[in-house]
Amino acid sequence: MRRGYIIPIGGAEEKIRDPAILRRFVDICGGEAARIAIIPTASQLAETGPRYEEIFLQLGAKNAQSLAFNERQDCHREDWLQVLRDADGVFLTGGNQLRLSTTIGGTPVADLLRQRNQEGLHVAGTSAGAAFLSEHMIAFGDEGATPRVDMVFLAPGLGLTKLTVVDQHFRQRDRLGRLLTALAYNPRPIGIGLDEDTAAFLDADGRLEVAGSGAITIVDPSEVEYSSVDSARRSEPVSILGVRLHVLIDGATYHIPTRVAQAPRELARS
Amino acid sequence: MRRGYIIPIGGAEEKIRDPAILRRFVDICGGEAARIAIIPTASQLAETGPRYEEIFLQLGAKNAQSLAFNERQDCHREDWLQVLRDADGVFLTGGNQLRLSTTIGGTPVADLLRQRNQEGLHVAGTSAGAAFLSEHMIAFGDEGATPRVDMVFLAPGLGLTKLTVVDQHFRQRDRLGRLLTALAYNPRPIGIGLDEDTAAFLDADGRLEVAGSGAITIVDPSEVEYSSVDSARRSEPVSILGVRLHVLIDGATYHIPTRVAQAPRELARS
Repeated sequence: MRRGYIIPIGGAEEKIRDPAILRRFVDICGGEAARIAIIPTASQLAETGPRYEEIFLQLGAKNAQSLAFNERQDCHREDWLQVLRDADGVFLTGGNQLRLSTTIGGTPVADLLRQRNQEGLHVAGTSAGAAFLSEHMIAFGDEGATPRVDMVFLAPGLGLTKLTVVDQHFRQRDRLGRLLTALAYNPRPIGIGLDEDTAAFLDADGRLEVAGSGAITIVDPSEVEYSSVDSARRSEPVSILGVRLHVLIDGATYHIPTRVAQAPRELARS
Repeated sequence: MRRGYIIPIGGAEEKIRDPAILRRFVDICGGEAARIAIIPTASQLAETGPRYEEIFLQLGAKNAQSLAFNERQDCHREDWLQVLRDADGVFLTGGNQLRLSTTIGGTPVADLLRQRNQEGLHVAGTSAGAAFLSEHMIAFGDEGATPRVDMVFLAPGLGLTKLTVVDQHFRQRDRLGRLLTALAYNPRPIGIGLDEDTAAFLDADGRLEVAGSGAITIVDPSEVEYSSVDSARRSEPVSILGVRLHVLIDGATYHIPTRVAQAPRELARS
């Protein structure tokens, strides 16, 4: 059995004119046969779920159903759990990632998403939905490019993968500093900084491909020689030596197990 | 193959007069046949490692060797990795848990400890060493019993288990608030608040037994109905409804999968 895709999106993805990321998600889920479940929990707006239902149906999905898990008790509703069991893809909307983790964390919905992603279910999330996908989630933090020991708050996320820590609206909100801080704490996962309207399609082999109009900043701490995060005082800048950084655009790939980045195949030139 | 014990200790464990926790650790590791490796990385003091070598030899271990992983490069030393491969038990000293995660995280030492714990290696840690054992580690935070959204900083830990978040020097440093905050972010793991000179011996089935002179506070968020951590502003108090709490002393057990606590068997009365 092959694990489904994990697809963090940087927020503000194009929905009308040329919705390349959402169309690709529908295609991966089976195109005309695709059954898509939407989890609008992160959003406080009642129209968020129905809006995505409409978008996915316009993109040709067979069906699209929004499941309004608003309270922890909702996460035990058998009819909605059945929709998740039958789905080819699940889409988590934007909003506040702590609403996702506090509402869904530790419930049958979270267990089911982890289990079914292992079995082939594709799981996408935009903005807050993207932040929530990994084991270690950036809950909130401060802007700025210089890391400080107290500029980022991590929390347990959904836990589909331990390979990555994701940050979104990346260059739009100047978030390199908080992503570097998160990785300085423990240089185990790689950092994925997602610009708006940009997605990482992460496959079962740990290879991600970039799609969308912006860029993805890959922050690889595996060769870090030193960081001062253990000795820095609160609000002081933190030193980190030896971070590798890649900026990838549409069509580029990155293979996490081997840490190899590849530019888009330049077929047009040949 | 049966996973080895995971043994977080709340710090300041008795070392001379009646070292019940350390003696039990040596016994579990094979008593007179026990080969124990010590990782003193969290400590800044050169004498910490040799001190524990002496203690474990006095308690009858066959050998005890401190491995001074001070820099990330040290974590590639083949001779020290071989000591970890041959060990029956590994003991992580106290100090600063961010020194552990920044020095060992993402290196062959961390990979080896996770793999060998799965295969039967027993891993104990005291204070900072205890905080580091779980997937989600409390890196630092503020004192006080009332949770606030920004009072605790989590970071990726060693990752031996996702079942628990550990806090140490628990009642001595008034840390209920920060542990509650950590669990409010995502009510998936259980919280283990360890008093000084108190340990949790967590076995392969997810049952922990308390040993030592203080108490363990188990914080079980699995029935939490509501928390305000997603809407609270920084430094504001956070509301959480439905936390279950147990205070357990020497001999009591707690089974994490079923969330059942048992008092020590009261044989003296029968």
